[in-house]
Amino acid sequence: MSRLLLNCDIGESFGNWTMGLDAEVMPFIDCANIACGFHAGDPSIMRKTVSLALSNGVQIGAHPAYQDLVGFGRRSMAYAAQELQDILHYQIGALDGLCRAQGGRVSYVKPHGAMYNDMMANPAQLRAVLQAVASYDKTLPLMLMATRDNSAAQRLGDEYGVTLWFEAFADRAYDSAGMLVSRQLAGAVHHDPEKIIEQALTIARGDNLTASDGSALHLQANTLCVHGDNASSVAAVRRIREALDQQSAP
Amino acid sequence: MSRLLLNCDIGESFGNWTMGLDAEVMPFIDCANIACGFHAGDPSIMRKTVSLALSNGVQIGAHPAYQDLVGFGRRSMAYAAQELQDILHYQIGALDGLCRAQGGRVSYVKPHGAMYNDMMANPAQLRAVLQAVASYDKTLPLMLMATRDNSAAQRLGDEYGVTLWFEAFADRAYDSAGMLVSRQLAGAVHHDPEKIIEQALTIARGDNLTASDGSALHLQANTLCVHGDNASSVAAVRRIREALDQQSAP
Amino acid sequence: MSRLLLNCDIGESFGNWTMGLDAEVMPFIDCANIACGFHAGDPSIMRKTVSLALSNGVQIGAHPAYQDLVGFGRRSMAYAAQELQDILHYQIGALDGLCRAQGGRVSYVKPHGAMYNDMMANPAQLRAVLQAVASYDKTLPLMLMATRDNSAAQRLGDEYGVTLWFEAFADRAYDSAGMLVSRQLAGAVHHDPEKIIEQALTIARGDNLTASDGSALHLQANTLCVHGDNASSVAAVRRIREALDQQSAP
Amino acid sequence: MSRLLLNCDIGESFGNWTMGLDAEVMPFIDCANIACGFHAGDPSIMRKTVSLALSNGVQIGAHPAYQDLVGFGRRSMAYAAQELQDILHYQIGALDGLCRAQGGRVSYVKPHGAMYNDMMANPAQLRAVLQAVASYDKTLPLMLMATRDNSAAQRLGDEYGVTLWFEAFADRAYDSAGMLVSRQLAGAVHHDPEKIIEQALTIARGDNLTASDGSALHLQANTLCVHGDNASSVAAVRRIREALDQQSAP
Repeated sequence: MSRLLLNCDIGESFGNWTMGLDAEVMPFIDCANIACGFHAGDPSIMRKTVSLALSNGVQIGAHPAYQDLVGFGRRSMAYAAQELQDILHYQIGALDGLCRAQGGRVSYVKPHGAMYNDMMANPAQLRAVLQAVASYDKTLPLMLMATRDNSAAQRLGDEYGVTLWFEAFADRAYDSAGMLVSRQLAGAVHHDPEKIIEQALTIARGDNLTASDGSALHLQANTLCVHGDNASSVAAVRRIREALDQQSAP
Repeated sequence: MSRLLLNCDIGESFGNWTMGLDAEVMPFIDCANIACGFHAGDPSIMRKTVSLALSNGVQIGAHPAYQDLVGFGRRSMAYAAQELQDILHYQIGALDGLCRAQGGRVSYVKPHGAMYNDMMANPAQLRAVLQAVASYDKTLPLMLMATRDNSAAQRLGDEYGVTLWFEAFADRAYDSAGMLVSRQLAGAVHHDPEKIIEQALTIARGDNLTASDGSALHLQANTLCVHGDNASSVAAVRRIREALDQQSAP
Repeated sequence: MSRLLLNCDIGESFGNWTMGLDAEVMPFIDCANIACGFHAGDPSIMRKTVSLALSNGVQIGAHPAYQDLVGFGRRSMAYAAQELQDILHYQIGALDGLCRAQGGRVSYVKPHGAMYNDMMANPAQLRAVLQAVASYDKTLPLMLMATRDNSAAQRLGDEYGVTLWFEAFADRAYDSAGMLVSRQLAGAVHHDPEKIIEQALTIARGDNLTASDGSALHLQANTLCVHGDNASSVAAVRRIREALDQQSAP
Repeated sequence: MSRLLLNCDIGESFGNWTMGLDAEVMPFIDCANIACGFHAGDPSIMRKTVSLALSNGVQIGAHPAYQDLVGFGRRSMAYAAQELQDILHYQIGALDGLCRAQGGRVSYVKPHGAMYNDMMANPAQLRAVLQAVASYDKTLPLMLMATRDNSAAQRLGDEYGVTLWFEAFADRAYDSAGMLVSRQLAGAVHHDPEKIIEQALTIARGDNLTASDGSALHLQANTLCVHGDNASSVAAVRRIREALDQQSAP
């Protein structure tokens, strides 16, 4: 079993406003998706977050977004493909600038919020993101969502020569297509830590999950998305980390 | 005589607003100071400007500013030294991101507007800028203003291991300290193209200028700041370019 | 024949960037749609524009937009109905603040760009706009687009107690539903001044236009949208003004 | 003894970021200084905060700031006097817009952060603020800092016909000039609730405080600035409220 990386959105404070327990969760994750200033994360926050990631040996991912600070990058916006590439290059470069000043580098890209959702829903958008990553640095993987069938996305990734890292969620219910059950519906989010850890381990082993309609669902995932929002989510990440480490021990 | 580089602020459009005759002036300059989004220049404008510079073989300089779009970066703001370094890394990196996507690189740094003025007036600010450039990439020169005596600035540049490019102005009157005469005063700005070209050539030859009090003023300059705002300033740049080329011809 | 008002988007400069010939076009219009800072128009630009409108006896309309300065408010954004009302109140109030300081008042509302288009395409969005106008000040008319059949919009206006001012265009071709022919298609925009003036007078008389498919189209319009972008569009506005004045003379 | 009003900075959340215990502190204060979007407080936050103030019968004050979201309005910026008036009218008007939609009104003005400090340090800045308030609505009081001698400020207020509300602090040490002791110095901020309440009551009675040099200090104050940042500051506000109510009871 290849190792399942834990990735976490991080550096989402802004100016005088604090969000997330970055220092608490950083020791337990492999990949930090760092906000780049368009939905969260001003330059000083970015510098501190990069420093925290480097000192914990955590990989730094650019977490670019639509330019919508009020909406936290969660509102869809009608960007042209070229504009989308431009804001990706701007944000990835900006974070890379703060990394280079500390001897680090951006090592992967994961779009945020509405940009992520639009990329998953719209192949033209995914092409624009892949083109942007490839033209910036072909060695950077792109993180996107694992579904029942990753092959269409994989073909696009291959076309652009970009490595894809598929991510799964341990705290969310899936439907039979391998899409997340809407938060509007009951049972969409798991709150029981035991259930979360069990789902994490199932994904890590490559075993089948049970979709919301009772069918078996196999997700091919490279990474698991975890959350550092509050003390209980950090505690869950710590337990997932420990369970994964134990599972992968010889 | 070493070659006097022509540098020009460029890429100062924003969104739907156009400013400057970038395409017209680019063929005559050596160094394009490209706005990085904080006072002008959104990501798409930056991409177009980088493309224009690359196709003209012009060096790309980061032209970072205080974050003040309404004030065009011309209003002084009380940044702490660390904050200043952070916004420099962010902006240099962002422009570098758009360069890398086109196979280019940022090759020097010139602060804009109030950030430039504050850097010239305040050694602590200059130190912060030097520290930021040095930690990003020690091979990038910093462009700043030539005055009667560049030695204090030069000592700081040496301390941080950063090459300094001193710039002079062909269209501005100087006082005896080698500072620009305030625009509030009569005669501060030269409008006569012949006078502008003569001052450019004088600086290029390393000869003395005549300061506003009649005294001789020697400026040690590596580069001359020119302007692409309108047709007449572009015409002046073309004539300066031709005069310099003729002067340096064997 | 009731008088056809000429309305014009105005105050679309921002900071150091200038757009539009506001002073030139203001004498010929009845209603100035003034940008409120979200897509164009900073507070100082707004103050100058209000002053210009007041000194020309022109009615001041709030021209609110989605918060997207880079995209000039032309990119659709997924605002919730309540958020939309909030940004309308914020922007109308801000412009009203600058008016009150000069003894004026906002006297109508016309959404800008993508907010306008989304309002015309989506009744829920139109309801949110009407609710926002009604709760701010029920006496303010809302300007929106005249189509073949204004009755559905009129019923909504009546429901919220808000007066509707329907606007038509003299320089655009219409399809048989009374919608503007897409700018992508040939013949969508009239460039011949004679044709523009003729269409303006036809609308003012309440006569039928000829739609793009050759059918007769009757538009019930209270106001005509004109443009102050450049010298030729200002010249067209002047001629429309003169033609309308002549037509309405006894 | 005239009643000492309790004022509190409020509505300082932004988008997805929460700051301050607004709902908890609102019942104990008289005047809510509501952020207007330039340093904190987006339109939706402003609407919620206005609603909370109205339902608690609390007066609504505009709390305008320099346009510096990253710096929370705490960094001094070089605004021209006219620009300062413009951003005051914009922000006061915007908040008034959100008030009017709920049947409320802005009833006073208190500048925030660096704008407040600059206004206290620089009479030209105070004049610009007074001019802005007077031209918006002469019946709105301006809140500013009580010092040993309020007479110079009072003369300016009288000149512009604007009522001044002087504010004092219960949790800060004063020097002999009636200025706040710098937070850099030991003893600048009172943490002992008993000391805070005693200072509040002393100010309310119009008795002398003891300045940092041991001298007697008399502050003529209309209002006391309190804080809703966290549970302990809210608890202090509740106790101040109760102590003041008891003191003023017959």
